Amino acid sequence: MPKVSERGTLMPASPIRRLAPLANAAKAKGKTVYHLNIGQPDVPTPPEGLEALKHIDRKVLEYSPSDGLLSLRKKLKEYYKRFNIDVDVDDIIVTSGGSEAVLFAFMACLDPGDEIIVPEPAYANYMAFAISAGAKIVTVPSTIDEGFALPNVEKFEELITPRTKGILICNPNNPTGYLYTMKEMLQIRDLVKKYDLFLFSDEVYREFCYTGAPYISAFHLPGIEEQVVLVDSVSKRYNECGIRVGALITKHPQLKKNVMKFCQARLSPPLLGQIVAEASIDASPEYMLATYNEYVERRKFLIDQLNKIPGCYTPIPMGAFYTVVKLPVDDADKFCEWCLSDFDLDGETIFMAPASGFYTTPGMGRNEVRMAYVLNKEDLARAMKVLDAALKAYPGRKLE
Amino acid sequence: MPKVSERGTLMPASPIRRLAPLANAAKAKGKTVYHLNIGQPDVPTPPEGLEALKHIDRKVLEYSPSDGLLSLRKKLKEYYKRFNIDVDVDDIIVTSGGSEAVLFAFMACLDPGDEIIVPEPAYANYMAFAISAGAKIVTVPSTIDEGFALPNVEKFEELITPRTKGILICNPNNPTGYLYTMKEMLQIRDLVKKYDLFLFSDEVYREFCYTGAPYISAFHLPGIEEQVVLVDSVSKRYNECGIRVGALITKHPQLKKNVMKFCQARLSPPLLGQIVAEASIDASPEYMLATYNEYVERRKFLIDQLNKIPGCYTPIPMGAFYTVVKLPVDDADKFCEWCLSDFDLDGETIFMAPASGFYTTPGMGRNEVRMAYVLNKEDLARAMKVLDAALKAYPGRKLE
Repeated sequence: MPKVSERGTLMPASPIRRLAPLANAAKAKGKTVYHLNIGQPDVPTPPEGLEALKHIDRKVLEYSPSDGLLSLRKKLKEYYKRFNIDVDVDDIIVTSGGSEAVLFAFMACLDPGDEIIVPEPAYANYMAFAISAGAKIVTVPSTIDEGFALPNVEKFEELITPRTKGILICNPNNPTGYLYTMKEMLQIRDLVKKYDLFLFSDEVYREFCYTGAPYISAFHLPGIEEQVVLVDSVSKRYNECGIRVGALITKHPQLKKNVMKFCQARLSPPLLGQIVAEASIDASPEYMLATYNEYVERRKFLIDQLNKIPGCYTPIPMGAFYTVVKLPVDDADKFCEWCLSDFDLDGETIFMAPASGFYTTPGMGRNEVRMAYVLNKEDLARAMKVLDAALKAYPGRKLE
Repeated sequence: MPKVSERGTLMPASPIRRLAPLANAAKAKGKTVYHLNIGQPDVPTPPEGLEALKHIDRKVLEYSPSDGLLSLRKKLKEYYKRFNIDVDVDDIIVTSGGSEAVLFAFMACLDPGDEIIVPEPAYANYMAFAISAGAKIVTVPSTIDEGFALPNVEKFEELITPRTKGILICNPNNPTGYLYTMKEMLQIRDLVKKYDLFLFSDEVYREFCYTGAPYISAFHLPGIEEQVVLVDSVSKRYNECGIRVGALITKHPQLKKNVMKFCQARLSPPLLGQIVAEASIDASPEYMLATYNEYVERRKFLIDQLNKIPGCYTPIPMGAFYTVVKLPVDDADKFCEWCLSDFDLDGETIFMAPASGFYTTPGMGRNEVRMAYVLNKEDLARAMKVLDAALKAYPGRKLE
């Protein structure tokens, strides 16, 4: 039998995927499992998007242009304007979800052996896309005790080598919910400018910022406009993760051309999803506000509850719908597994994402988990009761 | 400004893409352009697929599983049975079109520097996906004068090196319309077995075989079942290229696991497309036959017309909906460009794909074009009149 590639073997298998069969087994036994592990919101897709879907009246479901429907790109341009992000229609390339935008950004910017610096903990799939491109992710650590603030500029500069081609940030952050401050953003700007780097900025959670202050995009940073590669997606803001519509946005002339070659090779992003996405951009302010308020309330509730449980600690996340939680356990991987395989409270248990999958530095985040507050408040309340009881019963409990 | 990757610069820019602006300019001047250049059929999508689309009744358009909807994978298994292709549901991984299946096959099987042997002329995007994976495509030539039959086994063996990891075929073939014979398939089987290679088999045109004989899939070849990586797509057979639903099918246990890691990194194939694809598999035999008969008729008409034009020659393609045509011109790239920019017959002109984009050996296919018979017969008749007149008027005419 021929041997598979080393690259495929190197691809990370996320701890969530490893635990998924245990969750299924628990359900098969009749247990209720509260999913705090994934970013699949239960909030409905906007009616505008669902209506557009019902009214697709075409005889042939043909290819869309490789860079996406022009009407969608025009609408996205208007959407970005609301956030004071000034881009041309030609700067916007529609992709199959934010995932493909990250892949194409890496493919078109990085050669094998090139390095990018990423604050950790970080979204685990960046690693997967870097491996696909043969590039190396070098992590700069942020810690829960410092609320996941960025380390100072020297820590970044220590990591810069002749192979460093870029810095990647996710803002608001998955998995931490951290929102970068203007000071931090300017620090990154200075680095990017000084070392002539790309700034990959994943801003898919932009609608979910809880500070009240105006949103800071990488495109707001003066002097690096052609170095920014913005990754976007309609998945999270309109609760339509399955339609697979994202965007890569760049003003770098050569990069635009080269990304287009990757787009042309795969012919077309999904036509149906683009039609839904375009209509969803017309979601009413009431819909957007209701979604926002729902997350605000869930966040407040979840954070309050978590910090009341003895030995638990989580900073207050200022964006997205995730938080990283320190637990009084020996090993969060084992604890998450144990919750699914060995524990229940009145037939109920919880599925959390062990934070180990978000760190590359060995040992970091060992007693941390990520929780997504994508469940309604009643379910969150039940999940917190289960967590409290599980921590009391867990044999590997370890109070600091 | 930071430098883009060398990889992105190496990505081929297809001659069709280069000519597209000229076609748009011709249209802007009021000319009619007959598109023989792309595989975007004008045949309608099956009513079963369009109906399913109208009846999607979900409140949240959520992620599908990374390997696709189970119901779709079950249906695909039944579909393959019709062709005597015996695969398990677990062997089928749903992808974003056949394109993603090729990319993931290369990523999961090939490491940078690995080689695969591909008969040329070949679908240009294989090259793009190979570059994405850092792998090398080595071409074995087939020629129009031999009707694009495979060269003998020695020609393949000459190209095998320690880095050779696989052979790729597209059957029925894009761009030639060639259908491999049992003898040729067995020859490839023997090679794959002898050298322990992967056999990448792109079979997206399987419904369009015009010999009357049963279809031969790579999965029919005995003794290499775990070496076959089949690429499939619903795009062509149901005329729904825009929904982006394909599949990668393998029985290789480790490959399956590793391909899944690439699938998990990009989270989910398109949900809406999968719903349409699943319903389309129920397309009636009448629909399938009507589509088939339409292509049979167009093919006969086009081939007859082409071979009547002085200096033109095309073999009779036995599959797909393409044919490669030798023209009495100095340079098909120039001729195709000239047709769009300098010529019209009563306000009409034609857009053909220069064959140079399908060859890697310099100079090969210089006087050849690919035509897709995806237009109705009336339009094909007009296009042939335009071609005849264009060849008479073209300054670079060159009869052999």
